[in-house]
Amino acid sequence: GGKRDEKLILPLNSSVSVTLNQEELRARTTVAVSRNFKEDKMWLNGREQSMKNARLQSVISQIKRLCRKRKIDGDQPNEKLQWKLHICSENNFPTAAGLASSAAGYACLVYALSKLYGVEGDISKIARLGSGSACRSIHGGFVIWNKGDAEDGEDSSTEQIAPETHWPELRVLILVVSDQTKHTASTVGMQTSVETSDLLHQRLQGVPKRIERIKKAILRKDFHSFAEITMKDSNQLHAVCLDTYPPISYLTDTSHHIMQLVHAINQDNSSNMVAYSFDAGPNAFLFMQEKDVPTVLDILHYFYPNSDPHFIRGIHVPGKHDTHVDYTAFSDIKVIPRALKFIIHTKPGPGPSVQESDNGLLTKDGLPK
Amino acid sequence: GGKRDEKLILPLNSSVSVTLNQEELRARTTVAVSRNFKEDKMWLNGREQSMKNARLQSVISQIKRLCRKRKIDGDQPNEKLQWKLHICSENNFPTAAGLASSAAGYACLVYALSKLYGVEGDISKIARLGSGSACRSIHGGFVIWNKGDAEDGEDSSTEQIAPETHWPELRVLILVVSDQTKHTASTVGMQTSVETSDLLHQRLQGVPKRIERIKKAILRKDFHSFAEITMKDSNQLHAVCLDTYPPISYLTDTSHHIMQLVHAINQDNSSNMVAYSFDAGPNAFLFMQEKDVPTVLDILHYFYPNSDPHFIRGIHVPGKHDTHVDYTAFSDIKVIPRALKFIIHTKPGPGPSVQESDNGLLTKDGLPK
Repeated sequence: GGKRDEKLILPLNSSVSVTLNQEELRARTTVAVSRNFKEDKMWLNGREQSMKNARLQSVISQIKRLCRKRKIDGDQPNEKLQWKLHICSENNFPTAAGLASSAAGYACLVYALSKLYGVEGDISKIARLGSGSACRSIHGGFVIWNKGDAEDGEDSSTEQIAPETHWPELRVLILVVSDQTKHTASTVGMQTSVETSDLLHQRLQGVPKRIERIKKAILRKDFHSFAEITMKDSNQLHAVCLDTYPPISYLTDTSHHIMQLVHAINQDNSSNMVAYSFDAGPNAFLFMQEKDVPTVLDILHYFYPNSDPHFIRGIHVPGKHDTHVDYTAFSDIKVIPRALKFIIHTKPGPGPSVQESDNGLLTKDGLPK
Repeated sequence: GGKRDEKLILPLNSSVSVTLNQEELRARTTVAVSRNFKEDKMWLNGREQSMKNARLQSVISQIKRLCRKRKIDGDQPNEKLQWKLHICSENNFPTAAGLASSAAGYACLVYALSKLYGVEGDISKIARLGSGSACRSIHGGFVIWNKGDAEDGEDSSTEQIAPETHWPELRVLILVVSDQTKHTASTVGMQTSVETSDLLHQRLQGVPKRIERIKKAILRKDFHSFAEITMKDSNQLHAVCLDTYPPISYLTDTSHHIMQLVHAINQDNSSNMVAYSFDAGPNAFLFMQEKDVPTVLDILHYFYPNSDPHFIRGIHVPGKHDTHVDYTAFSDIKVIPRALKFIIHTKPGPGPSVQESDNGLLTKDGLPK
C-alpha cells in the first residue's frame, strides 16, 4: 500500500496482487436506472446508505462521463444518464473479520455500472477512485498495478500477469486473528509514513527489482521464490509502518506468532512450504500449494486449537489428514488456544462477471428483495 | 545495538546511552588473588559459575596483559598474575525481568580487576569484550560509543558527553511487561540483519546526524527534542529487526500499547512529556522530567491497574498525586490490568566506584560470605 496522491488515489509504489476466488469471498451488486425512480439510492448488506460519499460520487460521475463520450448506435444514452440510479450491494465477507471488502465492492460496482451504461475500456482507473486496490480486483488471477509517473495518474494502470488458471495448485488460507486491534486507518497511516519515515525511501528504491523477481516467480510457478519475496515485502511494509512517527502497528502478538510458525515450518521443510503476507491489519494471508494444505491445516490446528465447528471455512479438505507432522521441530513455539477466530480456505480466482438477471438483488420496482 | 565484528564486539553504528543509577540497579563484584587459592573460581548471585566462558577469559587475559605491560614500582605484578583468582559478583536486578544485567556486570568486573591488578587507562575497550554495551557503563551519565572505523577496533571508544549531574531533573521509569516473549538472542539477531535487511543501510547512513542532534539536546537539556530523537531511533531499530529475514520481533502487544499511550500523553500535552526506548526486549524505558513523574505514574496506574504493593519500585514518590489527569483525551486507549509486572523508578547515575573493603562479597579465605 501507500499513496502518493490522496485524491487521485495514486500509489507510492507498484505492486503485485492475487485476486481471490469469489466462491469464498465476493461482492455482488445490482444496479438499475428508471424514469420512475425519484432519487439515487444505495443499499449495502441490506442497509440503506447515504449517497453523499465523495468516492462513490466520483466513481458514478466518471462512469457517466465515459458513457457520454461514447456513441452507441440505437441506444439513447443521454436519457438513461438522467434517470435516477439504484444500487444494491452485498458481500459474503464475514463481519468483524477485518478483511478489506471495499476493494471487492468497488470493483464489482464499477463493473456493474460499466455494463449498465454500456461503457468499455479501462474501467480499473475508475475503480481506483473508489478504493485504491479495487483497480486490481477488476482483473482475475495475478495482477500488477503499475504506479505510473504522471501527475494526473493517467499512466497508473493495472495489468494481468497471468490468469488464475495459470497456477491452479496455489491455495490461500486467511487466518482471521482474535486480537483485532487496529490503531490507525490505512489511508491516514501511509501519508504520515511519506512525511516521517527515513526508511521509506530505501524501500521504494527496491520495489521495481522485487516486482520483476516476483513476476518471474509467478510465471515459472517457483513457489520457494514466490514465498520469500512475498514475506520479505510484507515485513518491509510493516517495518516502514514502525519507522513512521508516531509509529503504526498493524501486527499483533498473534501475527508475529504466525510469522514465527511459518518460518519454523519452512526451515523444517528445507524449502518454503508456506508464505505469509499481512495487509493493514493483523490477519495473515498464507499462500501454499494444494498438496501442502492438509499438513499446514494440521499444524495450525495443533498450535491454535479451536473447537468451533466452523473453524475452517471455504474449500473443503477431507478430514483426518494423517500428515504425521513431527512436532519436535517446533518445540520452542507455544500453543495458543483460540488465537485464531477462524480460517478461510480459498484460492486465486477470476475478476468480476455478469450473473443471470433473475439473481439480481433488486425487485422490478428497484427495491432490495 | 548491532555488531560489525562478533569477536571484537564492534558495533555497526555509534550510539548514545544513559548510565542508570546504582541505587536501583547495580552489580557488585569482589575480586581477590592469593597464593593459597587452588584454582580460578567465580560465583554469580550465590551460585558457582564455570570459568570456561570465552568472554570472561578474554576480559581476564586482556587485563593481565595490560598489567604485564605496566611497571609498578615496589610491587610485584608478576607474582600476583600467577596467583589464582576468585570472583564474586551479585546484582540487584529483579530476576525474570528481561533487563540486561551483563553490561553492568562486566563493567563492574573489569573495573574491579583493573583495581586489583593496578591497571589504568581505557578499560572500556576491555569491558566491551565481555558485553558490548558494558563499555558504556564504565562511564556515568550520558555516554557516546563511537563505533570507530579500524578493523581491529582500536578506535572504537566511549566518552562521557555529560555527567549525570548535568541534567538532575531527568528520570527513568522501567516498565517491566508481563508478556516476556523473546524469540531471538540479540547477538544472533543483528548478524542476520546485516546479511538480510535492505533498510539497515539507510538506517546506518542516518545515525551520525541523529547522534549530533541528541548530543545537542542533552547538552541543552532540551527534553522535547531528546524525546523525539530517542523514540524515532528506537522505532527505527525495531523496524530494521522486522525487515530482517527471518524477521526479529522484540516488541509485544504491551510494548505497542505503551508506545501508543506515550504518544497520546505527548499529544495531549502539546509537547513531549515522555519518551520511550526499547532494547532487545519488550520492556519500555520511559524518560521524563522529575516534575512530570507523578502525572505519568498516575496515567500508568490508570491504564495498567495492578494491586501488587511492590508495583512501583525505586525512587519513592509521595502518594496521592492529585494530578487531575483528564482521561477523555485517552478515550481510544484500552485499560489492560496487569499488563506490567512492575515499574522501576530510577535516574541517570555514575559509573563504577570502589566500595569500603569490609563490604566485600568474599571472606578472607576467598569464599562467598
